[in-house]
Amino acid sequence: MADEILSEGSHTTEDTFSFQEVQLAFRNRGMPAEGLCLPITPTGMHYLLNHWDIPAVDTSTWQLKITGHVENTINLDLSALRKLPVVKMPVTMECAGNGRAYMKPRPINQPWTHDAVSTAEWTGTPLKGVLEKAALTEDALEIIFTGADRGIQSGQDQYYQRSLSIAEAMRDDVILAYEMNGAPLEPQHGYPLRLIVPGWYGMTNVKWLSDIEVVSEAFNGVQMMFYRETSGAGDAGTAIETIKVRSLMAPPGIAVFPSLERQLEAGPVTLTGRAWAGKNQISRVEVSTDNGTSWNDASLHESLGKFAWRGWNYQWQATPGKHTLISRATDSEGNVQPLEQVVTFYGVGNNGIARVEVNVIP
Amino acid sequence: MADEILSEGSHTTEDTFSFQEVQLAFRNRGMPAEGLCLPITPTGMHYLLNHWDIPAVDTSTWQLKITGHVENTINLDLSALRKLPVVKMPVTMECAGNGRAYMKPRPINQPWTHDAVSTAEWTGTPLKGVLEKAALTEDALEIIFTGADRGIQSGQDQYYQRSLSIAEAMRDDVILAYEMNGAPLEPQHGYPLRLIVPGWYGMTNVKWLSDIEVVSEAFNGVQMMFYRETSGAGDAGTAIETIKVRSLMAPPGIAVFPSLERQLEAGPVTLTGRAWAGKNQISRVEVSTDNGTSWNDASLHESLGKFAWRGWNYQWQATPGKHTLISRATDSEGNVQPLEQVVTFYGVGNNGIARVEVNVIP
Repeated sequence: MADEILSEGSHTTEDTFSFQEVQLAFRNRGMPAEGLCLPITPTGMHYLLNHWDIPAVDTSTWQLKITGHVENTINLDLSALRKLPVVKMPVTMECAGNGRAYMKPRPINQPWTHDAVSTAEWTGTPLKGVLEKAALTEDALEIIFTGADRGIQSGQDQYYQRSLSIAEAMRDDVILAYEMNGAPLEPQHGYPLRLIVPGWYGMTNVKWLSDIEVVSEAFNGVQMMFYRETSGAGDAGTAIETIKVRSLMAPPGIAVFPSLERQLEAGPVTLTGRAWAGKNQISRVEVSTDNGTSWNDASLHESLGKFAWRGWNYQWQATPGKHTLISRATDSEGNVQPLEQVVTFYGVGNNGIARVEVNVIP
Repeated sequence: MADEILSEGSHTTEDTFSFQEVQLAFRNRGMPAEGLCLPITPTGMHYLLNHWDIPAVDTSTWQLKITGHVENTINLDLSALRKLPVVKMPVTMECAGNGRAYMKPRPINQPWTHDAVSTAEWTGTPLKGVLEKAALTEDALEIIFTGADRGIQSGQDQYYQRSLSIAEAMRDDVILAYEMNGAPLEPQHGYPLRLIVPGWYGMTNVKWLSDIEVVSEAFNGVQMMFYRETSGAGDAGTAIETIKVRSLMAPPGIAVFPSLERQLEAGPVTLTGRAWAGKNQISRVEVSTDNGTSWNDASLHESLGKFAWRGWNYQWQATPGKHTLISRATDSEGNVQPLEQVVTFYGVGNNGIARVEVNVIP
């Protein structure tokens, strides 16, 4: 349909999107904004970003392999994994590229609006226990996690691979998850096993996990070099790792189809949404109903867990006319969401505020 | 981001897509093409088209109401529905707009590529039994099904409504479904209750079903007037109802990210896919590996059920170079998939073939 071929590192200043970007949008699902009303996102409403095809893993032969700089090589099938100590945890996950569609210029890649965040309950066994059984050798520096999904990116035929430092991998709350929301993982979410690293952007939570390799040198694979704040392809820049403070609002009122404009009746309305901050906690959410001219504090709901988003609400008296609503979160380290989009070369790490436009009718 | 406001009945000859179309693509999920390898689509991989917000239905007070031209008004809560006779059935569902993105000119609406088809197992009770208890009066002509989802379309503030003829509603296989793939419906698929009319396009399978009203006059609501083959907004045209014969292929080889081009190694490869035809059966699937110059019959897999897609496969000897692969299905009534896209005013009812481009490497 379009002759243009997408490649990483290309940008556009156009407001319009290519056929390939639309293809990506359909393969990679967003969470509808009203999903912000639910503390736990239903599995089929959870956002999804897969680089390549969803692999079909045959669990009659599948084993998780732990190899490399370890005293004991370990193979574990699914039933062996299920016999290990069990943890269950709500974790908010966000794609590092969430909000890319609002960047100008726009990096050509998955054109997320603000849909790439969700919270699920993950069940599995702590990675730490498995690594302790493997017994890392003294020269161990990093751990490479490999998924069963294979494809081509940056010119390389590869399986999906990300690494973690030993310190990060040995955190008590990093889990080898075989259940999502109380049921075995669905294929598109990584069946049979997915790494869950609470607080990190989605790319670190390797799906279809098949290999854990302990290495003594820093790993610089394709997926390590993409998720960076950089001035360009030649600059290594800084890795994007843990999720930055952010908030979103469930748009009030009702939608117009197909424009998705919002209409609301005048009167009192409870604005509600969620805020999250990776490894940090949410300390404040402010709401503006006049496009950022004035701000008021929202009420924070009880915490669902250390790594889960926090609900908030704010009472608003809606008056007829057009209004621009914004929420802005602050985390426990004093980081505040920026009022402008954070434009980066690959479009990762943006935590700028979202604007919700509503038309209030009498 | 873009000033253009979408409205039904507008079209574009551009190859590029508006911000609003991308928003729709993220809200309304496609089935990744490799989902064609699975006989039953996992719930979170099933395609999704919601016109407006997903409503939060409170089942502590929710009741299905059957009213209008009946002898007995009936109210049924979820536990009462679960006590009625149970049926479970695999049903292939497809959005009437599937493939809209390939139309030229392109109607401005949900810009589906070929993602809007899936098959789930639906469990519920036959509608017929409930209607018999209600006892339709002699003047009953149609039945209006109303969902709890509310929004604005064609300038009207409305709940989603579609009607069926009495004959169609009384079919043995039309069900009031409360489970999808063996679990309660997820919110985005219509929790707590969805109408399933096997063989019809998705718009008839009303989600969040709350009211069934028997009427004595033809219903011409907004959702009845949109799903039509028409020459324009002033022409009623012909209703699009049951799913036309169609087939798709799971693209062989591996994907390039983010362009989604396909690469494949030379040698023998089993091409596989699914074909479906609404109320009709699949009698033949042909495959072309030379962009339609020559055709060969594929092998059909066993049927999963009367209203479910049929698997097929075809053995291909892939030679180096670029190839355009096509599948074309024929149904039990002799209808054959057209080789060109069927361009209609609202972009509904297209069952044209899909082209899969692959680059075969030595």
